[in-house]
Amino acid sequence: MTDERIVVLAHGKFPDRAKTALGVMRYGDQTVEAVLDRDRAGDRVADHVPDVADAPIVDSFPDALAAADGDIDALYIGIAPIGGGFEESWRPDVRAAIEAGCDVVAGLHYFLNDDAELTALAEEHGVSLRDVRRPPEDIGVATGDAGDVDADVVCTVGTDCSVGKMTASLEIVAAARDRGIDAAFVPTGQTGIMIAGWGTPIDRVISDFTAGAVEALVVEAAADHELLVVEGQGSITHPAYSAVTCGILHGSMPDALVLCHAAGREAIHGYESFPLPPLAEYVDLYEGLARPVHESSVVAGAVNTKDLDAPAADEAIESFTGETGVPAADPVRDGADRIVGGLLDGLGRDLEEVDA
Amino acid sequence: MTDERIVVLAHGKFPDRAKTALGVMRYGDQTVEAVLDRDRAGDRVADHVPDVADAPIVDSFPDALAAADGDIDALYIGIAPIGGGFEESWRPDVRAAIEAGCDVVAGLHYFLNDDAELTALAEEHGVSLRDVRRPPEDIGVATGDAGDVDADVVCTVGTDCSVGKMTASLEIVAAARDRGIDAAFVPTGQTGIMIAGWGTPIDRVISDFTAGAVEALVVEAAADHELLVVEGQGSITHPAYSAVTCGILHGSMPDALVLCHAAGREAIHGYESFPLPPLAEYVDLYEGLARPVHESSVVAGAVNTKDLDAPAADEAIESFTGETGVPAADPVRDGADRIVGGLLDGLGRDLEEVDA
Repeated sequence: MTDERIVVLAHGKFPDRAKTALGVMRYGDQTVEAVLDRDRAGDRVADHVPDVADAPIVDSFPDALAAADGDIDALYIGIAPIGGGFEESWRPDVRAAIEAGCDVVAGLHYFLNDDAELTALAEEHGVSLRDVRRPPEDIGVATGDAGDVDADVVCTVGTDCSVGKMTASLEIVAAARDRGIDAAFVPTGQTGIMIAGWGTPIDRVISDFTAGAVEALVVEAAADHELLVVEGQGSITHPAYSAVTCGILHGSMPDALVLCHAAGREAIHGYESFPLPPLAEYVDLYEGLARPVHESSVVAGAVNTKDLDAPAADEAIESFTGETGVPAADPVRDGADRIVGGLLDGLGRDLEEVDA
Repeated sequence: MTDERIVVLAHGKFPDRAKTALGVMRYGDQTVEAVLDRDRAGDRVADHVPDVADAPIVDSFPDALAAADGDIDALYIGIAPIGGGFEESWRPDVRAAIEAGCDVVAGLHYFLNDDAELTALAEEHGVSLRDVRRPPEDIGVATGDAGDVDADVVCTVGTDCSVGKMTASLEIVAAARDRGIDAAFVPTGQTGIMIAGWGTPIDRVISDFTAGAVEALVVEAAADHELLVVEGQGSITHPAYSAVTCGILHGSMPDALVLCHAAGREAIHGYESFPLPPLAEYVDLYEGLARPVHESSVVAGAVNTKDLDAPAADEAIESFTGETGVPAADPVRDGADRIVGGLLDGLGRDLEEVDA
């Protein structure tokens, strides 16, 4: 699914407010043939984002189709308005994509499959509408099987939402592969699912099945890979989302944890009256909570330093290591090799084993 | 809603395998006019259960209607087969109840409101089908407001599922009322909801809304009462259900916790390869997890000793107190006054305050 030739819709928001679009462009195996942003039509991706494959930015799906000589497999909705609704201004592009025989992929709260016009049109043209935020129907309660898989399992855990757990997970997978390890990303949120082409949006499953949904992903991925990096969600200290965090921690039964933190963050984002505890308390909390179900240790840290200059970033990472006692890096700024080093130490794997 | 005159359906399972029926009979304000159990028709409730109001056990809904001189408000489904389905052998009774103008109340996974025949019949007769396991549509994410309510909030937390958290919560409310405290039970599971006539089945909400659903209940109940006892679910060490537990802990923002335990339980029920940690570790886990969101302490224990004789029960309770440092009782065997004593000490309330 992820070797598709795609067009990414990002009207009015490319690149800074198009997190999903950028995630797919940076980490997906898809080939992006064009970006739709009518506010920047005529520019190139490279004019705005230096480190992803270049592509034209165009006004509409028909323009994208022309630019790609008609050879497009899917249209990805690469932005989400607050509330996750479907903007009617996107409809002509979605309609044109379906009529051109393309699948449409979206991670909105509004499901394309609940839209009568689009479903009828999709049926007529024999294409799929893929709502990645709709969990599959066959999810059930966890059985405890994730603890028995024949793969090492790592989970990214956070001090808050929006600290870079998905990015850290993807960078860890890339750095592990650079070392010859057969690593796989296990997506638990809609952007990760769009990037990887599989996964379950854990925040949308029925709460009784939270751990079960993650367990199913781990069991599936462990059949084919030796190291799994499970994308964490939220934070165990989050007043609203900790249930999801806890279900992922217990459902994935990780052998090791990577603690993700945004340098300088002092309170829960959007819940400013809830201060973040010290980093060492997070280590104790995550390890203590994991232990009765499946013992696990924080073995490395991923520090998001995007708002800092280089010396301040280095200082933030050093301070993280001082507080937690584990190696850390900003996976975007530095790559995740140092994090993978910590992981392999923590898992008791050495490179000989890996090469074997 | 809970001053209804009701009939409880418990075919083939009364009393030992009719947990919901017994819960409603023991703790609900409803008047039970008859129990339906075709295997025991002709017996009386008092022949089997000494400590609840007596009522005839009859073969069918028409027999119940006759026994109650036609004066019945609702039929409660008081049993649940494994899987939570609707048994077709119940349909004649449900049909007869609707035709007699009665509401039907069920906590099944199968929703009566999804049954075409029953919904049509209910509409025809102007009655409601109340599926208490279907969460309301308007639940959203937690805002953190539960921490600001003008009531003391207590949450029952467990070492496992099925240790008696609902019963402990109801007994604590009863014992607090005996002391003149305006206490209210906050139901989070289907049996509790059927007993109390309100509440939300937290295990059925979307995982992102777990804390939000509990918060809404706490805010609602706090408007009318001075002490809330929130029914906990699962256990923070449960491999499948810990997400629900965590969401209730953080969503309810309790001022104090009552740790519930089944004496002699050594492993998670149904997950026997997961041993229970020592009780003192549970205290640390629950308090540690609560602290970053809303500081709380374990102030009392509820020990389920139903499988023990009196001396062994006393020993189990003493041992619980020895391990945790808090007063404890079996609320069924001893009543919950000692637990309420621990609560009031923990909350820093004295009886003068209460009387004021």
